[in-house]
Order: sequence, then C-alpha cells, then structure tokens
Amino acid sequence: MTSEEPQLVDQNPLPAALSKRLTEQLSFLVEVDRLKTVLRASPLVAADRRENDAEHSWHLALMVMLLSDYADERIDIGHTIRLVVIHDLVEIYAGDTPLYDTAAAVDQEEREQAAADRLFRMLPADQAQWIRALWDEFEARRTPEARFAKAMDRLEPILLNWMAKGGTWQWPGVTADVIRARVSPIKDGSRQLWDAVHSMIADGVRAGWIRPGADQPGGDGVE
Amino acid sequence: MTSEEPQLVDQNPLPAALSKRLTEQLSFLVEVDRLKTVLRASPLVAADRRENDAEHSWHLALMVMLLSDYADERIDIGHTIRLVVIHDLVEIYAGDTPLYDTAAAVDQEEREQAAADRLFRMLPADQAQWIRALWDEFEARRTPEARFAKAMDRLEPILLNWMAKGGTWQWPGVTADVIRARVSPIKDGSRQLWDAVHSMIADGVRAGWIRPGADQPGGDGVE
Repeated sequence: MTSEEPQLVDQNPLPAALSKRLTEQLSFLVEVDRLKTVLRASPLVAADRRENDAEHSWHLALMVMLLSDYADERIDIGHTIRLVVIHDLVEIYAGDTPLYDTAAAVDQEEREQAAADRLFRMLPADQAQWIRALWDEFEARRTPEARFAKAMDRLEPILLNWMAKGGTWQWPGVTADVIRARVSPIKDGSRQLWDAVHSMIADGVRAGWIRPGADQPGGDGVE
Repeated sequence: MTSEEPQLVDQNPLPAALSKRLTEQLSFLVEVDRLKTVLRASPLVAADRRENDAEHSWHLALMVMLLSDYADERIDIGHTIRLVVIHDLVEIYAGDTPLYDTAAAVDQEEREQAAADRLFRMLPADQAQWIRALWDEFEARRTPEARFAKAMDRLEPILLNWMAKGGTWQWPGVTADVIRARVSPIKDGSRQLWDAVHSMIADGVRAGWIRPGADQPGGDGVE
C-alpha cells in the first residue's frame, strides 16, 4: 500500500491488541464501507434518489434466495449469494459503469482489474485469493452460479426502471433492441425470467416508456 | 392486503402475462426497496450520513463470509448469510430500533411481529413460511448460525462507531458498561471477536470517545 492509496482505517487505526489477521480483515471491512457511496444509474422505487452498490448487492442476494427455482441449471444457492455479495466490490475504486453508457465501458475491464489488485490485497493472502477467485468466476460466467448471479444483476435494474416508468431506459440512444441486447445475460440464467423480461419490455414500448427499435413498426430510429 | 396498506408495486402493476407466482415474488422484491430508506443510527465511514438497513444487511453478509472462522460453533455459512440478508426486512414497516434507544425498544417486538405478518404474506405461501422461519430463527438465537449472525449485527456498528470516534456511543446515558451489555450477543457467537471488541471499548474509553461506567475509576455516573 503506497502513500498514494490511503485506506479509510488509517483515519483511526484499530487497537494494537488485535491479531494481524483480524486487523487485516476488519480494515478491509471498514474500507468496503465505500461501496455505500458508489452510485448507480438506477432510480430507487422507495425514494427520489439513485441506488448505491451496497443496496444493489443486498437486493441481488434476496433475489437469488427467492428466484433460484427459475434457474435453468442446478445451482448452489449459498455460493450464488456469495457471488452477488462481492460482485461489485471493485467499483469502490473503479466506479460504476452504467449498463447503457458505452463510453464508460471502453476501459472498464482495465480499471476493474487494477481496482481488484488494490482492494483484495488488503485481506490475508488466503482470503484475498478466494475473494478474487469468486469475482473472476462472476465475471467469466462459466459456472451455472455465475450465470444466474449475472441474470439477477441484469434483472434488478429492470424492476427499478419498470417502477420508474422509464429510468435509464430513457437515456439517449436506448431502444427496446438495445435493452434486449444489454440484458441478454438473463437468457443464459433463466428462460422463464427472460420471457418475463420480454413482456415487461413489450409493455414498456406500448406504454411509451421505451423507444421501439429502429427496425420495428413504429420505430423512430433515434440515435 | 387492505386499502390501508398500499404496496409500491401498485404504482405500476407488473404485466398480466407473468405467472401469479412470479408476480407475487417480483411485487415483494419491489416492496423491499423500502429497506434502502430505513435509516439506522450508525454513521457511515465513507460519507457524512447515516447508514440504511439495506447497506447494513449487505455489510453483514460480507462479514459472515470473511469472519466465519471466528465462530465458536460449527456454522453453515450459506445459511448464516441468508439470515443476515433477511434479518431487518420487518423494519420496512416497523422502523429501526436503535441499540441504545430504550424507549423505542418497549413495543419493538409487537411492531415487528405485525410488520412480519404484513410483509411476508405478499410472497407465495411456501416462501412466506420459509422467510418467516428464517426471521424467527434469527430472532430466537437458538441455532449456531443465528448466534453468529447476531454477533455480526452487533459488531458492524462497533466498527462504524470506532471509525467515527464515538458515533452512537456518545448518546446520553451510554457508558462502557451499557455498550458491553448491549453488544454481549457477540460473546455468544465468538469469544475471539468478543475479546477484540473489549479492546476496542477499552481503547475508546482511554481516548475519550466512550464514557467509562459509573462503577469504574473515572466513571462520572451520567444518567
């Protein structure tokens, strides 16, 4: 850790009586308080402000618990919850990359890899390696658990946009086609939830909260 | 559900094409967005505002993942994470009861039981029963998982108060003795974490962030 990278715990170091291992763990658990300040693009339903990453991660954990029966593949639910709990941690340093912000997506992977290196090394080596492996698993989507976790990550902002009657669906350049493409990871986790999302998008187009794609009847070809 | 109890989803009902079961589940998942607006007494480390219940619940889930080795009893980690994810849901309607607010604690159980009845019945019956059972398990603290979950629930605000060099420790009437009594559930989950908390409280008294108890040298007997 260089002097360019102050940690929150430096503001008030933990008692010297604590073991090195526990000090590292609690210092990390203080540092991740920052996730509560990383704002996402999605509007809350229950208040007039944007959602933060910690709230989002909690919401996904509950979604995994309640919607796991819709997973197309057999999943370990406890493992899937672990994936969603840690999936956004790197945004503490890398920031959130909104789903419909193509400019921000350009260097997203590079930013997030650097953030992972910086953040996870605060932990004892065995736990750093384990949390890093969980994050890599989530990103790679090569396990059934990672695919379902990513499906939840895409489904949650759909719920929020639906309740907002627009939300980030109304950003410039976003049409029904763009939305379907960006949320397509849902299809890899659950066909039933993908069908439900199709209904929501179709109803959203009919209601005027979503611009139809340029190739559809009624499409206006905006950006 | 009576007309006195509007649900958030009533603001924009889900598509009629969805199954009854999925509609109930997604309606519940919209309703729990309210947890992001239930403020706790604890100050965040990373921002100048109070923590909300959703952020807190996420933080506990990560704590369970990283600190489970300190549990005195063998615990199922996935199950313990489920307990912390749902443990504060009833506060959506019952509100938060701060740890050091003895007046609010008087009717806490009654308020929370009524809230549980109202909230969980939104779910399909099998899931309502299951989530209710998880919440009852957390409250009763009769399983190793519930004891460790409660220990995390007490430890997290200690971290936040420590970083704030006071926080709710500086409320009227709160002394080191009061704190030790209120956070004693940590002892039932982990002796090692209880020892660490003792060090933090002792250092907090020495630093002047915590008033010593009336029966201690230097105690001033406030309230």
